[in-house]
Amino acid sequence: MTETTRPSLALLGLGPMGGPMARRLLDFDGDLTIWNRTSAKAKPLVALGARAAASPAEAASDIVLTVLPDLEQVESLLPGQAGLLAGWAAKGIVRPVLVIHGTVSPTAVAAFAERLFSAHGVTVLDAPVSGGTVGAETGSLSIMVGGDEEAAKSMEPVFRAMGTTVRYMGLSGSGALAKACNQVVVAATVTALSEAMLLARSGGLDLAVMLELLQGGLADSAVLRQKGHRWLSSDFAGGGSAQNQLKDLGFILDAATKGGVELPLSRTVTALFDEMVAQGEGALDHTGIHRTLALRAQDYLQSPR
Amino acid sequence: MTETTRPSLALLGLGPMGGPMARRLLDFDGDLTIWNRTSAKAKPLVALGARAAASPAEAASDIVLTVLPDLEQVESLLPGQAGLLAGWAAKGIVRPVLVIHGTVSPTAVAAFAERLFSAHGVTVLDAPVSGGTVGAETGSLSIMVGGDEEAAKSMEPVFRAMGTTVRYMGLSGSGALAKACNQVVVAATVTALSEAMLLARSGGLDLAVMLELLQGGLADSAVLRQKGHRWLSSDFAGGGSAQNQLKDLGFILDAATKGGVELPLSRTVTALFDEMVAQGEGALDHTGIHRTLALRAQDYLQSPR
Repeated sequence: MTETTRPSLALLGLGPMGGPMARRLLDFDGDLTIWNRTSAKAKPLVALGARAAASPAEAASDIVLTVLPDLEQVESLLPGQAGLLAGWAAKGIVRPVLVIHGTVSPTAVAAFAERLFSAHGVTVLDAPVSGGTVGAETGSLSIMVGGDEEAAKSMEPVFRAMGTTVRYMGLSGSGALAKACNQVVVAATVTALSEAMLLARSGGLDLAVMLELLQGGLADSAVLRQKGHRWLSSDFAGGGSAQNQLKDLGFILDAATKGGVELPLSRTVTALFDEMVAQGEGALDHTGIHRTLALRAQDYLQSPR
Repeated sequence: MTETTRPSLALLGLGPMGGPMARRLLDFDGDLTIWNRTSAKAKPLVALGARAAASPAEAASDIVLTVLPDLEQVESLLPGQAGLLAGWAAKGIVRPVLVIHGTVSPTAVAAFAERLFSAHGVTVLDAPVSGGTVGAETGSLSIMVGGDEEAAKSMEPVFRAMGTTVRYMGLSGSGALAKACNQVVVAATVTALSEAMLLARSGGLDLAVMLELLQGGLADSAVLRQKGHRWLSSDFAGGGSAQNQLKDLGFILDAATKGGVELPLSRTVTALFDEMVAQGEGALDHTGIHRTLALRAQDYLQSPR
C-alpha cells in the first residue's frame, strides 16, 4: 500500500457476525470484496454493492479481514492455487495485512503471526470482538487488537467502522488474551447464576422474584439482564453455544499456563462445560449449564448419603 | 398488638448497616427504641429523637429488629434478666415479632424460628438485606423476607421505610436462602474478575484498558462498576470483608446440602476464600481474593514444571 492509493479491502466469512460486519464496512467504504465458503450468504451483500470473490485467492486484498470460528479455518484459506498466498502473489501484494476477528487461542495466534510474517511477509493482527450480533449490526462492537502497533494504527479507521471501542492491547496474541479475560468473566457469571438459580429452586423460591432481587444489587450483571429469561423459561436453545464457551475456556487455561498463573475458578467452569458437551448438549446456549448442574443434583439425590 | 394501638418498635445493633437503618425508621416513625452493645453509637440517634435502652430487656418492644453480624449474637440477646425474653414478659408483650436483618444460615435460622415460636411464642422473620451502606442510608435496600406470611405482611410498612424492594420469599429461612443465592453470584463475580485481571497481568495487558473493555460487553456487572478501581490500585483494604464472604459461602454450601444440590463453582470459591482467610487476609475487601490467586501464581512459577 502507498499513501496515495486506498488499500483494497476484503472480508472473508459471512456468518452471524461476519455478515453484519461486512454491511458496516460497505457503509464505510463501498469498495469491499467478500467471500464465504457457501456463496449464498454473499448475495444480500452483493445486492448492496459488495464484490463476491469465487475463492480466497480472488479475494486477496491489501487488507483481508477474517470472521471465522477458529484458527484452523483461517489457516485453510492460505495454501493452494485458490488460496490467499497465491492470490497475493498474483496481484503483487507484498505486504498484506491479515486480521483475525474470530476468538482464537492467544498462544496459537502469536505463533501463527510470527510464522506467517517470517515465511510470507504477511502482517497478522488478532482483533477479536465482543458485543454479539447486535453489536455487529449497530457497529458498536468492542475490538481488542494485538500485533504490530503501526499496522494496528493504520487499521483503526476500518475497525472504527465496526466498533465503538477499539483498543490496542500489545504484541501478537494480546487481543486474543484480552478476549480470553473477557470470557473468564462471562463463563463464570453464567455458571454462578446457574448455581444461584439451582439453589433457589431447591428451596422452592420464586425464580422471577429471585431474578428481580439479584438485579437490584451487587449481583447485577449484563448476563443477568440479557439472559435472565432463560433460567425462568428453562429454554436454553440457540444463543452463544456451550461448545464455543468450552473452546474459549481451553484458550483461557492455555494462556494461564503460558502466563504462569493458576485459575481455579476457570478450571471448575471448564470441567462443567466439558461435562455439558459430553452429555451432547454443546449446541445449547451457555446458560444451559444450569441443566448440567440440575442433572448432577438428581444423581446426588439418588445416591446414598 | 391490637388494631388501635401502634406497635412499639426497637432496633438492636447500630453498626454500619444498623445505624443508617435506624435513621430511616426514625423518619418513618418518631417512636423508636434503640440499643447497641457499645452505647456510644446510640448518641447521634438519640439526638434525632430515638430512645436509648440500657439493655435488650429495656428495648423489648412489639417489634424488635436486629442488625447483627450473626445468629449467635441475636441469640445472646434473649436470656437473662437483661434479655429480650425477660423484657417482653415484664411488659406483657405475648406475641412479639423478632426480625433478623443480618445474613445468617437459612437452615439455622429456620430451626431457631421454630424453637423460639414453640418455646416462647416469638414470631421470627429472617429478612436479610442487600444494597450495602449506601442502600441503608438512602432507604433503597432490597429486603428478602422469610417466615410467617401474615407477620411478614404486617411488617411491610416498616420494611418499606428502609428498602425499595421488599419481597416475601416463603417460610422461615427463605429470606436467608434468597440472600445466599445473591451471595453465590457476588462471590463468584469477584473471584472471576480477580482471575481475569490476573490473566491480563500475566500477559502484560493494561488493566485500565481491560476494565474498560469488560464494561463494554457481556462481562459487565455491578461488581465491576463499584469495585473495578480496587484491581487497578491493588488497594484491597476495608470494604466487604473476605471473612464475611467466607461466612456466607458456608451458609451457601449448607443450604445446598439441605436442598440436595451440588454447587461446584461455589465450592471452588469457598476453598479460595478459606485460603485467603487462613493467610490472615480475612479483613481485606473480598476483591482481595486477587492477592490470594497472585500468591498462588508465585508458588507456581517457583515450583518445577
